[in-house]
Amino acid sequence: MQSGSKERDGPSQAQLPSIVHALLRSYRSDERAKRIGRRFLPSHEEIVEILHLFFELLFPGYFGRLDLNEENLEYHTGNLLAELKEKLERQVERCLCFREECEPDFDASACRLKARQITQAILEKIPEIRRKLILDAQAALDGDPAAESLDEVILAYPGYRAVVVYRIAHEIFSLGVPLMPRIMSEWAHTETGADIHPAAVIGESFFIDHATGVVIGATAHIGNRVRIYQGVTLGALSLERDASGRVVGGPKRHPTVEDDVTIYAGATVLGGQTVLGRGAVIGGSTFITRSVPPGARVAIDPPKLRIGGVEGTVVNQEGGNHPTSSSLVASEEMPGRGNNK
Amino acid sequence: MQSGSKERDGPSQAQLPSIVHALLRSYRSDERAKRIGRRFLPSHEEIVEILHLFFELLFPGYFGRLDLNEENLEYHTGNLLAELKEKLERQVERCLCFREECEPDFDASACRLKARQITQAILEKIPEIRRKLILDAQAALDGDPAAESLDEVILAYPGYRAVVVYRIAHEIFSLGVPLMPRIMSEWAHTETGADIHPAAVIGESFFIDHATGVVIGATAHIGNRVRIYQGVTLGALSLERDASGRVVGGPKRHPTVEDDVTIYAGATVLGGQTVLGRGAVIGGSTFITRSVPPGARVAIDPPKLRIGGVEGTVVNQEGGNHPTSSSLVASEEMPGRGNNK
Amino acid sequence: MQSGSKERDGPSQAQLPSIVHALLRSYRSDERAKRIGRRFLPSHEEIVEILHLFFELLFPGYFGRLDLNEENLEYHTGNLLAELKEKLERQVERCLCFREECEPDFDASACRLKARQITQAILEKIPEIRRKLILDAQAALDGDPAAESLDEVILAYPGYRAVVVYRIAHEIFSLGVPLMPRIMSEWAHTETGADIHPAAVIGESFFIDHATGVVIGATAHIGNRVRIYQGVTLGALSLERDASGRVVGGPKRHPTVEDDVTIYAGATVLGGQTVLGRGAVIGGSTFITRSVPPGARVAIDPPKLRIGGVEGTVVNQEGGNHPTSSSLVASEEMPGRGNNK
Repeated sequence: MQSGSKERDGPSQAQLPSIVHALLRSYRSDERAKRIGRRFLPSHEEIVEILHLFFELLFPGYFGRLDLNEENLEYHTGNLLAELKEKLERQVERCLCFREECEPDFDASACRLKARQITQAILEKIPEIRRKLILDAQAALDGDPAAESLDEVILAYPGYRAVVVYRIAHEIFSLGVPLMPRIMSEWAHTETGADIHPAAVIGESFFIDHATGVVIGATAHIGNRVRIYQGVTLGALSLERDASGRVVGGPKRHPTVEDDVTIYAGATVLGGQTVLGRGAVIGGSTFITRSVPPGARVAIDPPKLRIGGVEGTVVNQEGGNHPTSSSLVASEEMPGRGNNK
Repeated sequence: MQSGSKERDGPSQAQLPSIVHALLRSYRSDERAKRIGRRFLPSHEEIVEILHLFFELLFPGYFGRLDLNEENLEYHTGNLLAELKEKLERQVERCLCFREECEPDFDASACRLKARQITQAILEKIPEIRRKLILDAQAALDGDPAAESLDEVILAYPGYRAVVVYRIAHEIFSLGVPLMPRIMSEWAHTETGADIHPAAVIGESFFIDHATGVVIGATAHIGNRVRIYQGVTLGALSLERDASGRVVGGPKRHPTVEDDVTIYAGATVLGGQTVLGRGAVIGGSTFITRSVPPGARVAIDPPKLRIGGVEGTVVNQEGGNHPTSSSLVASEEMPGRGNNK
Repeated sequence: MQSGSKERDGPSQAQLPSIVHALLRSYRSDERAKRIGRRFLPSHEEIVEILHLFFELLFPGYFGRLDLNEENLEYHTGNLLAELKEKLERQVERCLCFREECEPDFDASACRLKARQITQAILEKIPEIRRKLILDAQAALDGDPAAESLDEVILAYPGYRAVVVYRIAHEIFSLGVPLMPRIMSEWAHTETGADIHPAAVIGESFFIDHATGVVIGATAHIGNRVRIYQGVTLGALSLERDASGRVVGGPKRHPTVEDDVTIYAGATVLGGQTVLGRGAVIGGSTFITRSVPPGARVAIDPPKLRIGGVEGTVVNQEGGNHPTSSSLVASEEMPGRGNNK
């Protein structure tokens, strides 16, 4: 970050200090959106490196070092874990401390000790995270006719990648680390288009296909063997504001999805009391704000069609031509292709 | 970019020159999609560096250098501004000149002078951009029950990041710089999933939650304290083509959203004459092509449900079983969970 | 990837080996999701480099080296092609061999020869890919009133970038290379939000505007001069499972879109037998599971509105106030703005 303006004409150079001072005044005029004189702030960059190390450890031989064999495996794994441990301890400490350092009774060494304990707990969970992710990959392979192998799912499926990051972020969230889980899930959101809050609870064999536009809220609860498609929202109903203008949310604002449910593309499911019963099938583009019983199939009505393409005229099954309002409607029964009635 | 083919077998090497010549013939056969012998083209890479410098200046201590304090703040800020000034001058010049250099009366030094003046104007706006962005971050914190701090919004909210880039790109657009604003907004689109045209006019305290799939058109006009969710489109109605086949758009093609409006997930609002009146609440998954009065609440009808899950049979409130068409419908009143009627 | 733990306290260091061993046990306990002792795995990183080289060759002077002129053009093009050839041969070999290397009759040199032949065929297609991409860029310029130049489309339109990668990935898919096409299309998906399966067949002059949330399935077939908007899905209907639990798909699962069709934002079109007839216009947010005849215009009904904003009361055209269910409905004829009836 060096200064290097090639041509320093008089007026332009004289103006830079005044802009600097205007900006400093702006910093001083508001306590918000600045961190001056603070020690602890998580590094977005190092948290993404942490995610990459997790990927290498969870899927040996797929990322980073590709030439693993039985001789170098133990050494390589130990090496990665040591590097992950160091970075995690540093970033967990910063996430724990960044809020507390402003408190008068802030104890930096207690913070650091807690960071080490939490990091140890995170690392001990890696085999269990891997066990679940293998089931998730299998669910993707079983759930998508276009999937040719587990390798393809691991290497190329963004929905799967979003689930990998979710499972890591969720464990870190459950251990009480602030900020890091959200930074991780938003990295996954940028990469995959799926927005899964790390606080959400998701069962086993979870498959997200296509992934773009999926939103899973913080208090959503999803069972086992659930399959969802692009654009599915598990969200909150309209939110009210309290006296200070802040939107208030209860403890359960997002839906519950029971085992073996399938939710097709673009479905919107809202509300903390909304339960999708076991085995239900939620059709594409539906809008659900009430519970659905087990085994139910929910779908939207097919659209009305205009036939013939002439503005203002409709030909439909119930009778001959007649003028319409400016909305375009036609009969529900659609003649097959080539049948131009 | 070095040549380094390890194994040079006879036939393979002989074929490369013929491919080169085929490609050069392809370049010569069409004037479009090539820039040979031109001097000025914006660098996508440097424009992204410019955005990163803006982020550091707008949010001191959050990105890049994290150890800011009162002693190093002024020096660091001046350093960043000098670097930003140099890169902006270069890229603004290229954006201004890349179209004009083909004109016979092209004056390179006039172009460069204009680039400096515009860059000065951009830098002078930074405190005002920061003022607005603090209000936007506050709106995000107030509008999302899952948000824990302003720091979290600044560090991890993609919708907020899209708004940051919009406010920068909009100022640059307003100063008449071509291409750069669009390159910036498309970078934000890649990062966040939100597509906000830099020409759009957006008021204060603007909050986008989740962000994926948000599309805000070039002639949209948004007021203050507006809140939108994922998948919301503020778009144009169907577009007509002129004699040459080019789609024509009038001066106002996208909607107007007044103060204090909330637009929930997946709502589509279309048309230059469509106005969402002050305080209106637009429900999720609605489709709006006409104005909505102030204070109105717009929602879609709840979906019809099939109960029982048996293909071809419907049980509903109005009567017993009866056969259906192949579409799946059932009564609107949904029994609660566990009530398998 | 070096070990560098700064503070090695006793208990923490003693625990790392036990985590290593737990992870190794996890690797050995399942044959899935690991590649130990394998030679061939595609490099995601090098495949992205390959895409960047394609961009430079397809659009000379826009990416990478910006100062092309008639003197350096041939040398520069030859240089890029040689580099692309080397990387393609290496990655095509790995993609071809990674599945076969487990077979007992695996012939490594036959694999390598096939990789060279396929790479030659890929390079020979570049002029034709460029020809089609010029038509696609022209379609974007003609189809979007906000587009100012072909340069802007090439430099800044994510929908166009998704189409560029599709055309490259499709040729590679057609030559029988596994995995690489999917890695390429998922890179484009991350960058642009559009998910286009490389197996899909797409005609000329294809324009995707905004791009986020577009999903085009593997067996979709799209004609010429088709225009689609954000959030459009060309997908499969509900899928059944076979005895082993794997979802089965027939050979044609995704729709056919004929020439000159326009599909507006958020439309969902499903089913292998669904044909959108030539020149049809599919309105935004529609849900289509049956064929549409040529020239037809399909749209959804406009939403019902509540007017007045008072919970539980509806004023509509047909009569005075009356109580409602908890759903919000009002008359279809919307009074204009300022008319608070």
